[in-house]
Amino acid sequence: MATVRLLSDEEAAAIPAVKMVFDDIRATRQTDFINNFWRALANDPANLKRVWETVKSVMGTPGTLDPLTREMIYIAVSAANACQYCVQSHTAAARARGMTDAQHGELLTIIGLAAQTNHLALAMQVPPDPAFDVH
Amino acid sequence: MATVRLLSDEEAAAIPAVKMVFDDIRATRQTDFINNFWRALANDPANLKRVWETVKSVMGTPGTLDPLTREMIYIAVSAANACQYCVQSHTAAARARGMTDAQHGELLTIIGLAAQTNHLALAMQVPPDPAFDVH
Amino acid sequence: MATVRLLSDEEAAAIPAVKMVFDDIRATRQTDFINNFWRALANDPANLKRVWETVKSVMGTPGTLDPLTREMIYIAVSAANACQYCVQSHTAAARARGMTDAQHGELLTIIGLAAQTNHLALAMQVPPDPAFDVH
Amino acid sequence: MATVRLLSDEEAAAIPAVKMVFDDIRATRQTDFINNFWRALANDPANLKRVWETVKSVMGTPGTLDPLTREMIYIAVSAANACQYCVQSHTAAARARGMTDAQHGELLTIIGLAAQTNHLALAMQVPPDPAFDVH
Amino acid sequence: MATVRLLSDEEAAAIPAVKMVFDDIRATRQTDFINNFWRALANDPANLKRVWETVKSVMGTPGTLDPLTREMIYIAVSAANACQYCVQSHTAAARARGMTDAQHGELLTIIGLAAQTNHLALAMQVPPDPAFDVH
Amino acid sequence: MATVRLLSDEEAAAIPAVKMVFDDIRATRQTDFINNFWRALANDPANLKRVWETVKSVMGTPGTLDPLTREMIYIAVSAANACQYCVQSHTAAARARGMTDAQHGELLTIIGLAAQTNHLALAMQVPPDPAFDVH
Repeated sequence: MATVRLLSDEEAAAIPAVKMVFDDIRATRQTDFINNFWRALANDPANLKRVWETVKSVMGTPGTLDPLTREMIYIAVSAANACQYCVQSHTAAARARGMTDAQHGELLTIIGLAAQTNHLALAMQVPPDPAFDVH
Repeated sequence: MATVRLLSDEEAAAIPAVKMVFDDIRATRQTDFINNFWRALANDPANLKRVWETVKSVMGTPGTLDPLTREMIYIAVSAANACQYCVQSHTAAARARGMTDAQHGELLTIIGLAAQTNHLALAMQVPPDPAFDVH
Repeated sequence: MATVRLLSDEEAAAIPAVKMVFDDIRATRQTDFINNFWRALANDPANLKRVWETVKSVMGTPGTLDPLTREMIYIAVSAANACQYCVQSHTAAARARGMTDAQHGELLTIIGLAAQTNHLALAMQVPPDPAFDVH
Repeated sequence: MATVRLLSDEEAAAIPAVKMVFDDIRATRQTDFINNFWRALANDPANLKRVWETVKSVMGTPGTLDPLTREMIYIAVSAANACQYCVQSHTAAARARGMTDAQHGELLTIIGLAAQTNHLALAMQVPPDPAFDVH
Repeated sequence: MATVRLLSDEEAAAIPAVKMVFDDIRATRQTDFINNFWRALANDPANLKRVWETVKSVMGTPGTLDPLTREMIYIAVSAANACQYCVQSHTAAARARGMTDAQHGELLTIIGLAAQTNHLALAMQVPPDPAFDVH
Repeated sequence: MATVRLLSDEEAAAIPAVKMVFDDIRATRQTDFINNFWRALANDPANLKRVWETVKSVMGTPGTLDPLTREMIYIAVSAANACQYCVQSHTAAARARGMTDAQHGELLTIIGLAAQTNHLALAMQVPPDPAFDVH
C-alpha cells in the first residue's frame, strides 16, 4: 500500500499546478495514461513539477545516447536499488521503445554479472589500479 | 587495504591454474596489464577461472548490445552498489572503448535521475500499474 | 509471505518472555495493537527483547531531536534500504506523531535529492574536500 | 581517484555556463569555497545547472522542516547509500548549521537502529499491517 | 508482476537448451519442482545454463563450508540486497537442509547487528585500523 | 576522514562511562587493542555501551552457530552494504578465529553468486513460489 494517496483524474484536474503537469505528461507522451508514480507525486505539486521536468529533459532531449539505451541504464540502476515499481515501469518503457527479448536478456546478464563482481571487489576490498586514472 | 593478497606476476606464474587464466586475459585483451581485481581473485583459482570466463563471455561475445553500452550499464550498477573499484575500472574500460565526455555526462545524469525516482517510489511505496504487465 | 511465523496473541501469551515484551509494548504505546514486526521477531524471545528495548530507548527517550524528526530520519534510512515494511510502518508512526502532508512532501523531496547526488558522487568518485575535516 | 576531472577556478571561469553556476553557489552560500562535487559536475554544465538549482531550491527554500533537519535527513540517506563523499560533506554542512554533538549522536543512533530493523524486516519478510493504511 | 514470462513445463520442454537445464535441475535436486527463478531465466537459455552451472557448482560442490552454512550466507546477502524472492527461496532451502528455528534466529540477529554497525561505521566514516592488515 | 573524533586512550579514560566499556572490551577480548569503531562510537557513551553490549552478546554468547560462522555472515552483510571498515574488521576477526584461505574463498564465491542472482531476481521481478511457504 502506498504511503501517500494516488490522485484521481478528478482530483488532479482540480489543482491547477497538478493539472498543468498532467496535461504536459499526456501531451509529451501522446497518451492519456498517467502512471501511478505521478499520481503519488502529485501530492506535492512543486516536487511533481520539478521531477517531471527533469525526467522530460533527461530522458527526452536528443543527445548522444538513444532513448532505448537510456531506459536500459535506468533499469540497471533500479534493479540495484531494489525498486520494484521502477524496474517494472522502465522495463515497460524500454519495451515500448523497441527493446527486444535478446536485448533484455543481455541487459539482465550484465546486471547480474556486474552485481557479482561488485560484491567480490567489495568483499576483497581491491585497491584501484593507478592505470585507471585517465586524467 | 585488501582483505586478500594481490598476487604478483611471479606468484601467478607459479600456479598453473592461475597462469592459464592470466595468459588468457592477456591474450584476450591484447595487453600485458592485469588489473588488481584478477590478482585478488587469483587466491581462489577455481573462482578466478569461473568469473573470468563469465566476464569474457558476457562482455566479449558479439550480441545485440555494443561493447560500450555494456560498459555503461556496468558503471550504472556499480555506482548503485557503491563499488568504488568497479566504478573506476569500468569507467576506464568505457573510455577505452570510446566513451566521449558527452556520453559519460548523459550516463551520469541518468544514473542520478534514476536514483532519485527510485528512492521517491520506494518512499511513497507506489503500487505497480496493471498497464506495465506486457505478457 | 514471511519467512517466520507471526505469533498470535494466544501464542505470545503462552511464552512468558514474549508476553513480557508484548505487555510492555502495549503499555508504552498505550494501545492494544501489536504490529507484525514484533509478532515475527517473537520467534526469538531474546532478540525480541533486545530489539524492543533498543527501539523503546532510542525512539522514546527525550533528547535533542523531537519524536517526529526521529521518525522522519527512520523513514529516510528505510527508503534507502528498500524496506517496504519499514517505510510503511514508520510513515504511519510519523503521521501518528503529527507529520503533515507538507512535512511529508519535504521529507520525500530531500530523500530523492540525496539519492540523486549520492549516486552522482559515487559514479564520479568525487574525493572529499579537506575542508570537511572539522576536527 | 575521480572518474572525471575536477575543474579549477580558472577552467570554470572560462566556461560561461559553469561560471554562472559557480557565481551563484558563491553568492548563495556567501563563501568563496566551491567543493569538489560541483567541480566534478561542472564537466556537464547542463547537469551542473539542473542539480545546483534543485539543491538550492530543496535545501534553501523556507518550509516546514528547518535547515538542520534537512541536512540530518540527507546524512541518513547518504550513509544508507554508502556515499562517503556525501556523508562527509553533509555532516560538515550540518555542523555549519549548528548540529551539536548530542544531536549528531542521536542521529547516528537512529540510523543504526533503522538499519538493524530494516534488515530484520527484510530477512523475515514481514507483511505490512493493514493498520498502516491511513487513506 | 514479472518483467519476463515464466516458462511453463510445456514451453521449456520445447526448447532443447532449456529442457537440458531443467532436466539437470530436476536430477540434481531429485525433485520435479522447478522454481520460478529458473522459469524466468529460461527466456535466455545461454544465461540460464551459465547461472545454473554456477549455482550447482558453488552450492553443490563439497568444500570447507557445509551446505547449510552456504545457504545462511546466501540469506544474509539477499536480505542486505532487499531481494524478496531470494530471501524467501533461500530460507526455504536452508530449512530443507535442516536449519532449526534457533539457527535461523541467530542468523537473523547477526544480520540485524551487522546492518546496524555497517551503517554506524558508514555514517561515522571510521578509518580502517592498520592492525586489520594481515598480509 | 571520520565525521567524529576518534577518542584516544587518555580521553577515553577520562570519561567513566567510556572507560567502563573500553575496560570490558579489553577484558572480553583479552587484548589491549581497541579498534577505531569503538573510539568513534565513544563520542556517545550511551550508544557505545548499547552497541558493545549487543555485539558482545550476539557474537559472544555460545549458541547454535560457531563464532567463525557468525563472522562470515557478518562479512557477507558488510560487503553487500558496501561498508569498507566492516569488511576489513570482520575479515580480520574471522581470520583470528581460524578462517582458512579455502573457507574465505568459498565465502567470497557465495557472496558474489548471491549478489548475481539477487540482481537477476530483482530485475526480472520473479514472483515467490507458493512452495516457499513453510508454515
